[in-house]
Amino acid sequence: MAAKFITLDGIDGAGKTTQLNVIQEWFTAQQLPVVFTREPGSTPLGEQLREIVLNPASKMTPKAETLLMFTARQQHLDDVVFPNLNKGINVVCDRFTDATFAYQGGGRGLPYAQIAALEQWVQGDFQPDFTLILDVPLEVALQRIERSREKDRFEQEPAEFYRAVRETYLQRAASQPQRYAVLNSNREKEVVRQDIFNLLNQLFER
Amino acid sequence: MAAKFITLDGIDGAGKTTQLNVIQEWFTAQQLPVVFTREPGSTPLGEQLREIVLNPASKMTPKAETLLMFTARQQHLDDVVFPNLNKGINVVCDRFTDATFAYQGGGRGLPYAQIAALEQWVQGDFQPDFTLILDVPLEVALQRIERSREKDRFEQEPAEFYRAVRETYLQRAASQPQRYAVLNSNREKEVVRQDIFNLLNQLFER
Repeated sequence: MAAKFITLDGIDGAGKTTQLNVIQEWFTAQQLPVVFTREPGSTPLGEQLREIVLNPASKMTPKAETLLMFTARQQHLDDVVFPNLNKGINVVCDRFTDATFAYQGGGRGLPYAQIAALEQWVQGDFQPDFTLILDVPLEVALQRIERSREKDRFEQEPAEFYRAVRETYLQRAASQPQRYAVLNSNREKEVVRQDIFNLLNQLFER
Repeated sequence: MAAKFITLDGIDGAGKTTQLNVIQEWFTAQQLPVVFTREPGSTPLGEQLREIVLNPASKMTPKAETLLMFTARQQHLDDVVFPNLNKGINVVCDRFTDATFAYQGGGRGLPYAQIAALEQWVQGDFQPDFTLILDVPLEVALQRIERSREKDRFEQEPAEFYRAVRETYLQRAASQPQRYAVLNSNREKEVVRQDIFNLLNQLFER
């Protein structure tokens, strides 16, 4: 079976870190090769750009922000994602192009068509095999963001920004149900964990 | 008369710094408002990206490098170029999109059509009113680059890279003679200075 490119995405505060651990647990139990990466990041260039884009002191237009995200993405694909997939190693990525549509499109208001043009420039027709969208009610996400000690540049945005981010994720997932699963992560840990295990079992036909 | 956007470009070692001073001298003598900018750079974001892209320790694909240049460019246009032109202030920019075609296209081998797609995404139909390409024989450029104390990431490239860079500049200038002037800067300082003065006099109808 060919290696798969799996992305995990969703509004800040939806519990990505916890569920990445669950996914790692599943791969370990199944003894399947996997690398975990993140965007922006996972290359020296990507990590430098991540620092800039998350720094609350940075100033950039929505278009520059979008170009920056795709710069990091291009390097990440060429240096990490494609070589691993070619070696038969699965790749699980913490945020990918869905986040660009959600944050720079929904949140910042950049037209989706403009983002899709850069997506095509950078990725061609390459898409994740499977995307898991973690979702929580907006109020829960906002409370969790509020509690973070050091807010990054996005976490300082108002509720309206995050409402649009969340809606973009849900719309994208609804438009392509064969590629996406939306998981309500505002439930008992064990229940969410079992859902993720089931999804991965299905994806890898276990 | 509307404010003009003038770009100065050309192979490393062609003497841009010297001729920027000549251009500044002309604007001062004519008492015309002008700001001098550079790419990548001239905004906090652009300067951070400049440091990354010129640092010999940085590693990036030609596509990521191109996206990075356009990220800096987008911010520069929105924050510096357009506001100044709108206020009636001329803008003289040290390197612009011609450099992307020359270095990432000619030098790195990225297809010109791919660069043109990003140019359209970032600039729409906006183009410099006038572009001055400084040119010297390849051997002269290479000797001057060789003499620089600290070589940046581009200056470490071989002669073949610079040959392609120079040829791209000359081809672009030849294809649109109404927008470009190519100036042989391998001549007596005073002769080059007078040429630049004549070109600017003509452009501003002085």
